[in-house]
Amino acid sequence: MSARPAARDSQRFFRSRWVSQPQGVEELEPARLAPGYRAAGVPCGLKAGGETDLGLLDCRAEEVSSALLLTRNASAAAPVRVCRERCEGSSIRAVVVNSGNANAATGEQGFRDALEMRDCAARALDFDPAAVAVAETGVIGVALDIASVRAGVEAAAGSLSESGGEAFSDAIRTTDRWPKRCTVRQGGVTLSAQAKGAGMIEPGFATLLCFVQTDAEVADPEAELRRAVAGSFERITVDGQMSTNDTVLLQASGEAGAPLPDGLLDAVLLQLALEVVADGEGATRVGRVEVSGAASTEEADRVARAIGNSPLVKTALYGRDPNWGRVAQAAGMALAGQQLAELGPGEIDAADLASEAPEVELSVRLDRGEAAGHVFFCDLTHDYVTLNAEYTT
Amino acid sequence: MSARPAARDSQRFFRSRWVSQPQGVEELEPARLAPGYRAAGVPCGLKAGGETDLGLLDCRAEEVSSALLLTRNASAAAPVRVCRERCEGSSIRAVVVNSGNANAATGEQGFRDALEMRDCAARALDFDPAAVAVAETGVIGVALDIASVRAGVEAAAGSLSESGGEAFSDAIRTTDRWPKRCTVRQGGVTLSAQAKGAGMIEPGFATLLCFVQTDAEVADPEAELRRAVAGSFERITVDGQMSTNDTVLLQASGEAGAPLPDGLLDAVLLQLALEVVADGEGATRVGRVEVSGAASTEEADRVARAIGNSPLVKTALYGRDPNWGRVAQAAGMALAGQQLAELGPGEIDAADLASEAPEVELSVRLDRGEAAGHVFFCDLTHDYVTLNAEYTT
Repeated sequence: MSARPAARDSQRFFRSRWVSQPQGVEELEPARLAPGYRAAGVPCGLKAGGETDLGLLDCRAEEVSSALLLTRNASAAAPVRVCRERCEGSSIRAVVVNSGNANAATGEQGFRDALEMRDCAARALDFDPAAVAVAETGVIGVALDIASVRAGVEAAAGSLSESGGEAFSDAIRTTDRWPKRCTVRQGGVTLSAQAKGAGMIEPGFATLLCFVQTDAEVADPEAELRRAVAGSFERITVDGQMSTNDTVLLQASGEAGAPLPDGLLDAVLLQLALEVVADGEGATRVGRVEVSGAASTEEADRVARAIGNSPLVKTALYGRDPNWGRVAQAAGMALAGQQLAELGPGEIDAADLASEAPEVELSVRLDRGEAAGHVFFCDLTHDYVTLNAEYTT
Repeated sequence: MSARPAARDSQRFFRSRWVSQPQGVEELEPARLAPGYRAAGVPCGLKAGGETDLGLLDCRAEEVSSALLLTRNASAAAPVRVCRERCEGSSIRAVVVNSGNANAATGEQGFRDALEMRDCAARALDFDPAAVAVAETGVIGVALDIASVRAGVEAAAGSLSESGGEAFSDAIRTTDRWPKRCTVRQGGVTLSAQAKGAGMIEPGFATLLCFVQTDAEVADPEAELRRAVAGSFERITVDGQMSTNDTVLLQASGEAGAPLPDGLLDAVLLQLALEVVADGEGATRVGRVEVSGAASTEEADRVARAIGNSPLVKTALYGRDPNWGRVAQAAGMALAGQQLAELGPGEIDAADLASEAPEVELSVRLDRGEAAGHVFFCDLTHDYVTLNAEYTT
């Protein structure tokens, strides 16, 4: 078994074999945000070690087109409910986030605290509260220390900067082994993004947060974001567990006077999504499973997810074991009760599992139709068990 | 973390806190089968170490009422397809089984081999082939050594004995840490049973096999078996993976002239099912999650399964971590997109997770209706990862 991958900061941003680098794209320093945006990250005392744990990001433009996608988990955290009920998702100018307390399963007080955190940020920026989104990640079932948050929001508002991208992405990090962020330029527009991954959070939830800023003109940000998320964050699985706090925000000021080049948002979100998988709890490498010949897209997706979520396939990825039988079993489970020609080495290519590559390909060819689909997943390792079993409340 | 539980052979059979011992039931020596049945187990060379790997069991009565339940996995193994297509499930007199080769993903030759194994047993016993079931478990994707099987069937047929229960249950064992078998007597009838568990098989599949023999009169064995399986084997999960080879057989000769006492089959199968979970790969203990207040039985079951299959809950069971937040997250995922009152410590009782008990209880109270359901599951441990990752093809 290989050791954990080292932090990847020094590498270029577009580096996965599965991401087509957009033509002519320029990678800028990720601290520098897209023009018109400012951000800050400060420590406010929620994380016991004194790390940066409160982030604030705003857009100077008064008219911002935005889209806000939130978890569908029925146990959604307070900030998700505040976003859903009290924010205007299509015109978000700012977001305030903490990475010390998920404010989940905290009852009505939790809702009031998330609202107060949001309102604090709106007051400090002099923005309409409905134009400010709130996101939180961290410990669950513990009341938010709202006094610390208030002080943190004030401090962050006082240190907003156009080169605050790094501090902001540090402020959304929990157990992530490396930061996930970029600033890229193509076709006269700039796009910056910060994400945090499916590292687990003491003591409970994997949360995905992703914030994207651009000066491009985006006519229908919700449609753009949904499409890009469908091809990226919705195609990944670490442990099959849907979080209570997942939040993805796209903001577009339009000030560059040019549209987003085709494929740029998709490529950025796919690279970020792949980093979230690669940085999954205890993960040492990433697999991509492609299912073809399915009767429908839904079926291809269901089979691919069954394979990507199978602990047997995930341990085979860890163990460099080209065990196509486990793939056949998981596919057969996803198609239980249906007609399926036998799957063997002729239909399943699992040879890449035996390689030492950090990104490996699996494929399954069904004979049920013409539809295809894929999922990205990480391996299941001893570190996953250690990280999740050795914490004791 | 506690060590693996020791082999449990010396204990009484009905020992789980979740099994109500049938009144007046007598536990007999498990080698001794129900009257009228004979069995044998021999080594035929499929297992490299020379262990017992071929079992044969028959019933002297010419008229046997039986029921045969088979996996719904669409990648079903050859013996499952032989049982489905070439056996008369309601009048099975004998079963032949090997535990060295699953004969799965072996194509048309695999089907012919499973058929030949079955026919061999029928010839040796002078039975109608359709009255002989066949089951296999072990390595997958490897052609069955049918010559060895033929010799093994001959040898087993020559050593059939009324006290062959232990040898037979040894012959169905793969990585099981202890044998799962019993012979019990109640209300003038005897019932013997042998099961093998969800220990993983080199190099691939978890398989459940269970054989039950009785001299009781059972008017509708399929209905009896389906009901008992629904409350036992269908309520357990080790890793959420449906096998390609699962087979459960009930045979009733009626020679005792008395019916099966109410609840006896249910109690036996539930105890065996709990042993399969307790002996799950790498497992150190078993949890039972009870979901109440659901809108429907299907919903209660779905929520209970989401909790029992969550790697976060399974590692919390391993780590003695009473982490109710992970339970809330899994329940919320199962109810994604629906209305759910917030789940907190008032609705989720996870305190038992912190105990050192081998069998722990979790409960979740929803507010959506009156339906309830439960699932039994085991913990996710370092040994699970080791067992499944360290094999290399």
